[in-house]
Amino acid sequence: MAVNRIGRQTIKFTNPPSIISTASIVGPKEGEGPLKDYFDFILEDDYFGEKSWEKAESKILREAVKTAIRKAHLTPQDIDYMLAGDLLNQIISTSFAARELRIPFFGLYGACSTMAESMALGSILINGGYADRTVAVTSSHFSSAERQYRFPLELGNQRPPTAQWTVTGAGAMVLAAADTGPYITYVTPGKVVDMGIKDANNMGAAMAPAAVDTIVTHFQDTGFSPGNYDLIATGDLGSIGKEIADDLVQKQGYNITPVHTDCGIEIFDAGQDVHAGGSGCGCSAVVTCGYFYDLLQKGRINRMMLVATGALLSTTSTQQGESIPCIAHAITIERTIPGR
Amino acid sequence: MAVNRIGRQTIKFTNPPSIISTASIVGPKEGEGPLKDYFDFILEDDYFGEKSWEKAESKILREAVKTAIRKAHLTPQDIDYMLAGDLLNQIISTSFAARELRIPFFGLYGACSTMAESMALGSILINGGYADRTVAVTSSHFSSAERQYRFPLELGNQRPPTAQWTVTGAGAMVLAAADTGPYITYVTPGKVVDMGIKDANNMGAAMAPAAVDTIVTHFQDTGFSPGNYDLIATGDLGSIGKEIADDLVQKQGYNITPVHTDCGIEIFDAGQDVHAGGSGCGCSAVVTCGYFYDLLQKGRINRMMLVATGALLSTTSTQQGESIPCIAHAITIERTIPGR
Repeated sequence: MAVNRIGRQTIKFTNPPSIISTASIVGPKEGEGPLKDYFDFILEDDYFGEKSWEKAESKILREAVKTAIRKAHLTPQDIDYMLAGDLLNQIISTSFAARELRIPFFGLYGACSTMAESMALGSILINGGYADRTVAVTSSHFSSAERQYRFPLELGNQRPPTAQWTVTGAGAMVLAAADTGPYITYVTPGKVVDMGIKDANNMGAAMAPAAVDTIVTHFQDTGFSPGNYDLIATGDLGSIGKEIADDLVQKQGYNITPVHTDCGIEIFDAGQDVHAGGSGCGCSAVVTCGYFYDLLQKGRINRMMLVATGALLSTTSTQQGESIPCIAHAITIERTIPGR
Repeated sequence: MAVNRIGRQTIKFTNPPSIISTASIVGPKEGEGPLKDYFDFILEDDYFGEKSWEKAESKILREAVKTAIRKAHLTPQDIDYMLAGDLLNQIISTSFAARELRIPFFGLYGACSTMAESMALGSILINGGYADRTVAVTSSHFSSAERQYRFPLELGNQRPPTAQWTVTGAGAMVLAAADTGPYITYVTPGKVVDMGIKDANNMGAAMAPAAVDTIVTHFQDTGFSPGNYDLIATGDLGSIGKEIADDLVQKQGYNITPVHTDCGIEIFDAGQDVHAGGSGCGCSAVVTCGYFYDLLQKGRINRMMLVATGALLSTTSTQQGESIPCIAHAITIERTIPGR
């Protein structure tokens, strides 16, 4: 059996890579939320000096990468590979940013699970001796996502209470073969799970079973239990999906409720009119790169699991009556590891 | 420096994975072309028994995976990870196939470079000891691609002479830690290159500089020259892009013309009215999994490089006046390697 794998589908790094720097850039609404002090830069408006929301999103992603690299006292030439994707069709935010950055590039699509997917592959490249440094990054933008997936904002459509609010923001993370920590120690890539939910305004409920499948598989593969974690953060189930996930995990014999939070719940206050919470690739990216990274560095948590969830639907699949296939990838991050 | 990397961006496998089986499924038009005898299955019509072209494309991808796994005398449970993507928005062909297959899944987007991207990451997982077996797969479908990227077929729009024809088909490849060969020995992941071309009906010209950047980088990183290869196959520059690529590589001191072919040229005959040649993720996938794999197995070639190229545009980026960012990933495949 492969030396870096345990159980059905979990990867255990023999030489865990370190997260040597992070950067997060968010929009004005996220900058008024409870995590505002953890972000590197808060935009004054949704356009960031560009002529379209799509160009703004690409600039946010590009600037997040440049900021993370600068904070590590490096230049883009020092980064071996970039692992990245976003929500826009053909991941244009990412591709256009990669054009400017000139870093060898693997394009990913995992919907809102992309931050975990990029961290997984970025870590795999370093632990495997393929790279010395990689950057993992993803973005989303409320206005470009609404235009593409739902309705033009100009229509003023009402949002149902189960709907989530796409975060405007990008989070970037520089990973390296270094002994500084925090370390990425385990990855449990997910399988696609689809319980038949067709309501694109209730993504949290659709994605919860995928998160549960990955979390339970992680426990089974590793022998860990919720007690091994100070924090298990799904992203982004929102308030409705989080409750469903807690219940479903409980039915499989694990109680994660005491340590479970959700990036979509963390990023906004109840008063910000976001209904079930935040969503979008950028949500788990900025909460992880901003807030959780700070908690780890300050030793307020020592061991966490990010379980980023993605709804792999398209407007075409919805129009053709399909339900929503979902996926979740889990990443274990530890502040210190024995012997290093 | 990372032990499995040489030069700026090339990965050299210390323990090269084998391609233990492949499968290719194509549409009726591809099944009338010069490579018809190399494909596993030729569809009778574009719908493959489904109600939409998109559902048909997903079924083609799924069946290609199942066929490749069956030909290796394995079941989907024997495959550790699936690396895959396609051209449709949110890669729905792939996600819906992954839902049925239940294999842990990394979603990729590299446009028509996706086959090489999936082979690269699938090999990285095996050589790095993360997996015993992976499957790399991608698909495209003429009718779903035209509907999404250009015009509904019902409009009967004329196609300019520089246009290429999206291949209907899927190619899947099972990679394993095995000593059977053919082996994947080197990967040169690409950087995004954009020379300012804005004509979405002239993709070959837009993508040629990206192919050239990756090919020349591969030679510089490894010290190889065109003479080290029996075959260098770009995919899919078509007839116009191939000439441009040959010229641009020549200007950098390498003559690839004697060994250079292009998947988009191989798959159709001049009489099939495809203008500049084939394109789409499925093109390099079926030509590699069908034709080239046969040449390698029969010893008619011993060492080849696949350089799959992708145009990372979207209809939105084109409407906003952007040029076309392109990428190419190179994969070296060898029939035998010393000592094994």
